[in-house]
Amino acid sequence: MWSELLPVGRYDASGGYRRHAWTTADAECRAWFAEQAAARGLAYEVDRNGNQWAWYGDPQGEGAIVTGSHLDSVPDGGAFDGPLGVVSSFAALDALRERGFQPVRPLAVTNFVDEEGARFGVACVGSRLTAGVLTREQAYELRDASGVRLPDAMEAAGQDPALMGKDDERLSRVAAYVELHVEQGRFLAGTPHPVGVASAIWPHGRWRFDFHGEANHAGTTRLEDRRDPMLTYANTVLAARKKARLHGALATFGKVSVEPNGTNAIASLVRGWLDSRAADEATLSALVQEIETAARERAERDGVRADVVRESYTPVVDFDAPLRDRLAARLGAGTPVLPTGAGHDAGILSAVIPTAMLFVRNPTGVSHSPSEYAGEADCLAGSAALADVLEELTCRP
Amino acid sequence: MWSELLPVGRYDASGGYRRHAWTTADAECRAWFAEQAAARGLAYEVDRNGNQWAWYGDPQGEGAIVTGSHLDSVPDGGAFDGPLGVVSSFAALDALRERGFQPVRPLAVTNFVDEEGARFGVACVGSRLTAGVLTREQAYELRDASGVRLPDAMEAAGQDPALMGKDDERLSRVAAYVELHVEQGRFLAGTPHPVGVASAIWPHGRWRFDFHGEANHAGTTRLEDRRDPMLTYANTVLAARKKARLHGALATFGKVSVEPNGTNAIASLVRGWLDSRAADEATLSALVQEIETAARERAERDGVRADVVRESYTPVVDFDAPLRDRLAARLGAGTPVLPTGAGHDAGILSAVIPTAMLFVRNPTGVSHSPSEYAGEADCLAGSAALADVLEELTCRP
Repeated sequence: MWSELLPVGRYDASGGYRRHAWTTADAECRAWFAEQAAARGLAYEVDRNGNQWAWYGDPQGEGAIVTGSHLDSVPDGGAFDGPLGVVSSFAALDALRERGFQPVRPLAVTNFVDEEGARFGVACVGSRLTAGVLTREQAYELRDASGVRLPDAMEAAGQDPALMGKDDERLSRVAAYVELHVEQGRFLAGTPHPVGVASAIWPHGRWRFDFHGEANHAGTTRLEDRRDPMLTYANTVLAARKKARLHGALATFGKVSVEPNGTNAIASLVRGWLDSRAADEATLSALVQEIETAARERAERDGVRADVVRESYTPVVDFDAPLRDRLAARLGAGTPVLPTGAGHDAGILSAVIPTAMLFVRNPTGVSHSPSEYAGEADCLAGSAALADVLEELTCRP
Repeated sequence: MWSELLPVGRYDASGGYRRHAWTTADAECRAWFAEQAAARGLAYEVDRNGNQWAWYGDPQGEGAIVTGSHLDSVPDGGAFDGPLGVVSSFAALDALRERGFQPVRPLAVTNFVDEEGARFGVACVGSRLTAGVLTREQAYELRDASGVRLPDAMEAAGQDPALMGKDDERLSRVAAYVELHVEQGRFLAGTPHPVGVASAIWPHGRWRFDFHGEANHAGTTRLEDRRDPMLTYANTVLAARKKARLHGALATFGKVSVEPNGTNAIASLVRGWLDSRAADEATLSALVQEIETAARERAERDGVRADVVRESYTPVVDFDAPLRDRLAARLGAGTPVLPTGAGHDAGILSAVIPTAMLFVRNPTGVSHSPSEYAGEADCLAGSAALADVLEELTCRP
């Protein structure tokens, strides 16, 4: 099952994956999902927002337990982020049927579309639409780097964009959503436990720093006559790192865009994106404020104009406490309960239904990279743990 | 004449020009040149390397005096860098004919192709080929950002690329090349002189700094587990500026490329291009060495690999001293003689024929920018000075 999915959307030059929403690679992943459903005799459906569902039991039944993750990737991402949760869900269902489980509720495996937001710039589009956090009108405005609109990309892939929107009717029949995911850090790597339960998702956001200077000839303009925004950007990158360390938080500039971006031209505009996260919202707010202040002070010195725009923000997510405790208890005493800095569909859906997450140990902590990895034994332990908690949730009234 | 050329290749969003070699905008500039030649009854030809020539007198005559500049631009460049020299050449010829000059040698106006190197990454392609500094084989390897090969772009524009190469026969008939150019600095702005004569071109070069780190999730990777090349790049940008200041030289990072360049991904590769120049080669060499050392030291701390590649290097150019002195004498006592940090076709050609340059005052020093500017009176003074030196050079045996 895992091996069939491995070659899809792999990009030879990096060894990483480019499975972006509504592309050919994404279509292949979705076809794989439909085949997995058919091979197991599961009722297959695609919901209004393009998410895929495979039902064991009555798709219209009440109090359903839903598990799954996503199949799309960041640019040059790894093989595990997303697919491990979907593959583990099918594997857990297989294990439960093999042991003759007797569910009293429907069980569904899902693939939430466009979790990474790599193409249209907004993460978790499938779950945001379903939960009503993103409206159809907002989704219609999204464009990819080539200018293709999200609704046009959906339509080209055979999905009617006019159906997009909040899906209360569907969510009203879901009792809980459990998502298994490779850990994107090294919390479990320091423990003897291959699987942990999520406590919370750190608040996080993206801020765009636009530094406007003046284009000029790099070979003739005296240093003292320059208004070079690359200097302001560079200083802000280093300030962000230092201040994040002092706060015990995270701050990253991983994306930058420069105009005119010529070797012999002083930049007129340097645009850098800050990704920042912290354990609580007060710390995050203080950190970003300090980075912005440092940027503005340096901009003043460089004769540069600094504009800071918050492009997205997600408050802290505390996963449903009773569900989290029930899962941890089922997995045995000492099961680690850990927070994460990464956003997930389970975080988005937690606003409207009880959700929980299982994390599988990642020996290096590396993620969003071709070298992202989890050991086979740990993956099997993750799938077994997922089977246990799905049994716990589906076999009781 | 000037007004016809102004709208060609202007890019509305920036107000700057995008006249890159062998594009449609370049073709329009070239058509304008051919029309100017025809309107004056000049013998028009395109040489083996795509440079345009308009002859007053016998194109096959010996000891020709050649003047001109280039019509292409950097991305979002200004209106003056290049075109001012070509327009002034035609205007100077008009003035000389009006005053009934009696040349004893042929006089040619030229447009050297692809001076800026904005499209294929190598500056002064037309003059380098002619001088034999760039071979046809090397030119065949050049590609633009879209992967289009230089010979294919030439061919599509109607120029046979197989003809490219060193043009000794043509150069053997040229006694001197004089190029007028807007000053790209503020040397003349501090003087009462609208026109100066060039003494030398600073040695200059481009170095590519590749910082290899490790892609990882920006939201989950602890700061101490990161190998973030953006930090190394940022520190190198600031170090370059500081060390250039201490050396009284220039160092600029104006171009950067990041992989994977995602907001929530720590970069795996940050590639930055250093443009550096100094008054002499020893200073330049010491400066670049210090920047490289600073980069490697920081890379070590960041767990990043630093590779530094010299992509191009041009030694100091001292313009032909007798020619320079003759021009300065003709323009009158006190005419400023000034160096420049910018490369020019006259610098390339100085290796094989006597060359000289005139600079026209630039009140702000701004160049390679839409706000590049020279006053009308100063432009007319430049054209008049060019007429005087061309008369000096063409009317004596």
